[in-house]
Amino acid sequence: MRRTSFSDMSCSIARCLEQVGDGWTLLIVREAFFGTRRFGEFQSHLGIAPNVLTARLQGLVQDGILQAMAESENGRVLGYRLTDKGRDLFPIVIALMQWGDRHAPAPEGPPVQVVDRQEGRPIATLQVQAADGRVLQARDVQVRPS
Amino acid sequence: MRRTSFSDMSCSIARCLEQVGDGWTLLIVREAFFGTRRFGEFQSHLGIAPNVLTARLQGLVQDGILQAMAESENGRVLGYRLTDKGRDLFPIVIALMQWGDRHAPAPEGPPVQVVDRQEGRPIATLQVQAADGRVLQARDVQVRPS
Repeated sequence: MRRTSFSDMSCSIARCLEQVGDGWTLLIVREAFFGTRRFGEFQSHLGIAPNVLTARLQGLVQDGILQAMAESENGRVLGYRLTDKGRDLFPIVIALMQWGDRHAPAPEGPPVQVVDRQEGRPIATLQVQAADGRVLQARDVQVRPS
Repeated sequence: MRRTSFSDMSCSIARCLEQVGDGWTLLIVREAFFGTRRFGEFQSHLGIAPNVLTARLQGLVQDGILQAMAESENGRVLGYRLTDKGRDLFPIVIALMQWGDRHAPAPEGPPVQVVDRQEGRPIATLQVQAADGRVLQARDVQVRPS
């Protein structure tokens, strides 16, 4: 059965999932945040089949989330890096990681820790905030047609 | 081809996507945050096939993200609401929505606005922060084995 295309739905969450909702896609983006650039590195870090990786990388380039780094002489793709649009996925990747650490932990505990480069301390837990900085729970917000 | 199960991977993002990575699943969670409770409401708001919705709701209950609200006399399921684990998906839903609003906008603009109930103002853009509250970009963090 063909899945309804989420881009037909006028919700931004649906439109975001359309581009990054597939599991592999967000794991490729995670790798890119961790500094992975080359095809072979993505492949060995993720244990993903080459044909699937090729398709997902092409989709990410097409959606403007990754850009291919081409060698000037023969145009061969050297690797992939995040665009500005891709880098804006940072809070999503962190939010997913923190939720997973808390609610779906690996038996041996969180495999990695994200630390603030300047202070060397773990980053804060991501929280939804009001314009004035108050922390908001779901019950503290209202959804309005805009 | 069967997709590698993400729960075999020791990354918290993969373990999170295993439970909520499927597009429909996060859209059902979004609906639950917006106050949807009953099967028929989920169905009409999302335009999802009943058999798919049934399967996704069962998965969400099994994963402890939704809980079924049963009528006391005959045990019939009245609706579904978020558990604490489900409510902790709030930053993820907001992060996805804000990214979608910015980078994959609907032609007619963002369909809804999330406002702080107390002040009636739009909530802040979600940002990754250090323990002391400094805003962090991806380049400001380091990933360490923990």
